[in-house]
Amino acid sequence: MAFTEISRNKAFGGQLVKYKHSSEELQCDMNFNVFLPKEAANGQQVPGIYFLSGLTCTEDNFIQKSGALAEAAKHGIALIAPDTSPRGVSIEGDSDSWDFGTGAGFYVDATEPKWSKNYRMYSYIVKELPSLIHNQLPVDESRISIMGHSMGGHGALTIYIKNPTKFKTVSAFSPISNPINCPWGQKAFSNYLGSDESTWKQYDTLELIKTHLNEKIDVLVDVGTADGFLESQLKVSTLQETVKALGRESEFNIRFQEGYDHSYFFISTFIADHINHHVKALKA
Amino acid sequence: MAFTEISRNKAFGGQLVKYKHSSEELQCDMNFNVFLPKEAANGQQVPGIYFLSGLTCTEDNFIQKSGALAEAAKHGIALIAPDTSPRGVSIEGDSDSWDFGTGAGFYVDATEPKWSKNYRMYSYIVKELPSLIHNQLPVDESRISIMGHSMGGHGALTIYIKNPTKFKTVSAFSPISNPINCPWGQKAFSNYLGSDESTWKQYDTLELIKTHLNEKIDVLVDVGTADGFLESQLKVSTLQETVKALGRESEFNIRFQEGYDHSYFFISTFIADHINHHVKALKA
Repeated sequence: MAFTEISRNKAFGGQLVKYKHSSEELQCDMNFNVFLPKEAANGQQVPGIYFLSGLTCTEDNFIQKSGALAEAAKHGIALIAPDTSPRGVSIEGDSDSWDFGTGAGFYVDATEPKWSKNYRMYSYIVKELPSLIHNQLPVDESRISIMGHSMGGHGALTIYIKNPTKFKTVSAFSPISNPINCPWGQKAFSNYLGSDESTWKQYDTLELIKTHLNEKIDVLVDVGTADGFLESQLKVSTLQETVKALGRESEFNIRFQEGYDHSYFFISTFIADHINHHVKALKA
Repeated sequence: MAFTEISRNKAFGGQLVKYKHSSEELQCDMNFNVFLPKEAANGQQVPGIYFLSGLTCTEDNFIQKSGALAEAAKHGIALIAPDTSPRGVSIEGDSDSWDFGTGAGFYVDATEPKWSKNYRMYSYIVKELPSLIHNQLPVDESRISIMGHSMGGHGALTIYIKNPTKFKTVSAFSPISNPINCPWGQKAFSNYLGSDESTWKQYDTLELIKTHLNEKIDVLVDVGTADGFLESQLKVSTLQETVKALGRESEFNIRFQEGYDHSYFFISTFIADHINHHVKALKA
C-alpha cells in the first residue's frame, strides 16, 4: 500500500514528512510522521526509533514538542511517530471520553465485537506499519527501537517485551505500568478485551516481566515525582518493586525525576538521555 | 499590578510559568509565559530574552515548539513570551481574518479611534510588560534582548532599532522586513494607523535603518529559501539590499537558509544559533 505525502518540512538538515495511508489492520486512513536525518538523503539506510504517544495525542505532539528532532539529527537516526488510535471509524461511544476510543487505542488488538474490526493498534504498530515503512523508506528494519509516553509508554514496554528481537531497546516516559490495576487501563481493557481479566495480562508490563524471563532486556524509564497521575494511573513504584522482587534490577533503569510533571516539558528535558539510550543499542 | 499564576511546569531544571495580568495599555487581561532557569531559583537576577511571536500565535507557540528552553537553560537565561494582540476586547471585525486584529497586533500603537484604546502592543512590549516583569521576577532589566518570528521578527527589529539601549541585541526569524510594502503590513497599518502612510514608517525596519544611523547595532536574521512568504510578504532581500546600500553590512548578519520554510521546524533548527547570538551580548 502506497503512502500519500501530506506535508514536508526541512528540519535540522533532514526532512520531516507526514504521510497518510490506508491501514488494513485498522480499516481506515491513518497519518504518521517520519523524521529522516540528512544521512538518509543519499539512499543510505538509517536506524530508527518508533515513538508511541499518550492519550488524546496524534502523530504530531511528539514531533512538535519533544525536541527529539535535534537529538535524532545529531545521531543520524530516523523517528517514526504514528497516531494513537483508528480515526474516522464512527463507532458509537468512540468519542464520548478523552481516555477511551478515539485517541486512546491502548496498543491492544481488541477482541470485543464492537471494537475488534478497527481497534488493532498492537498489530498495526508491530506488523503493518513496520512492513510498510521499511519497504518504502530508507529506515533499516534490523536497527529499530521503540519508546513512548504514558499510554504510549505502556505500548512501548509491552510491545518490546513481547518482541525483544524485533526492537533493539526500549524507553518510556511516565508509562502506565500496570494497566490492569488502574482506572485508565481497566476502562480500556474491559471494553476492548471483555470481562475475562485473564486476557488482559498479555498487555500489562508488570505481568509480562513475570513471564518473559528468557530475554535479558535493557529498559530506561523516567517519571516525574510531581506527575499527578503517578500513584493513581502510572504505578511506576509498583513496577519498580516487581522488578526488584524478580531480581531484574540490572535490566531496568527507573528514574524518579524530582519535581517534573506529565507534560512535554518533562519529556523535552530528558529526551536527549532517551535518544542516547537508543543510540547505544542501535549503533552497537 | 500583580500577576496571577495560571500554570507552572518544571523544565530543564528551571520553571516555566504562565501568568495572567490586567494590562493598562491594552485594557484587557493578557497572558504571558516566562521560563526561569535554575540560576534564578535562589533569588539571583538572570539575563532575559523577549520573544515576539507571529500571526495567529499566542504566548504558547514559541515555548512549546522552538526548543529554546533547552538552550536558555544551558546558558542560565530567562525567556519571556508575550501574546500577539489584545484578547477578548470584542471590537467589530477583530476576528474576521487571521492576519489582522486578534492574534495580529503588529507591535504598533494604533491611532485610529476604533483600535487605539486596545491595540497598543508597541507600548505594551516596550514599557508596560518590562516594568512589571523586572519588578516582580528575577530577570535583570539591564541585561535583556529581543527576538521574534515573522510579524514578531518585524516587532523585534523595529523595537530594537528604536530602543538600542534598552535591549542589548536583536535577532529575527523570517521577519516582515518592509511592512509598508507588503499586503500583511498594508492591511494592518492602514487599519491601525490610518491612511497617512508617512506615519507607517516609524514601524518599518527598512525605513528605520535609513534614519537611525547613530547607534551601531548587531542583528542576526535567518530566513528559509523555501519560505512561501519570502518574496510577497517578508522582503528580506530588499532589506539586504538596503543594508548594503547604506554600508551597514557589518551590523547585519542576514542568512538565507537553503530549503527551510516558515515553520517552527525551521526556527527550532537554528534556535541555538540565535540564543548564542544573544548570550554573547547579554554576558558581554
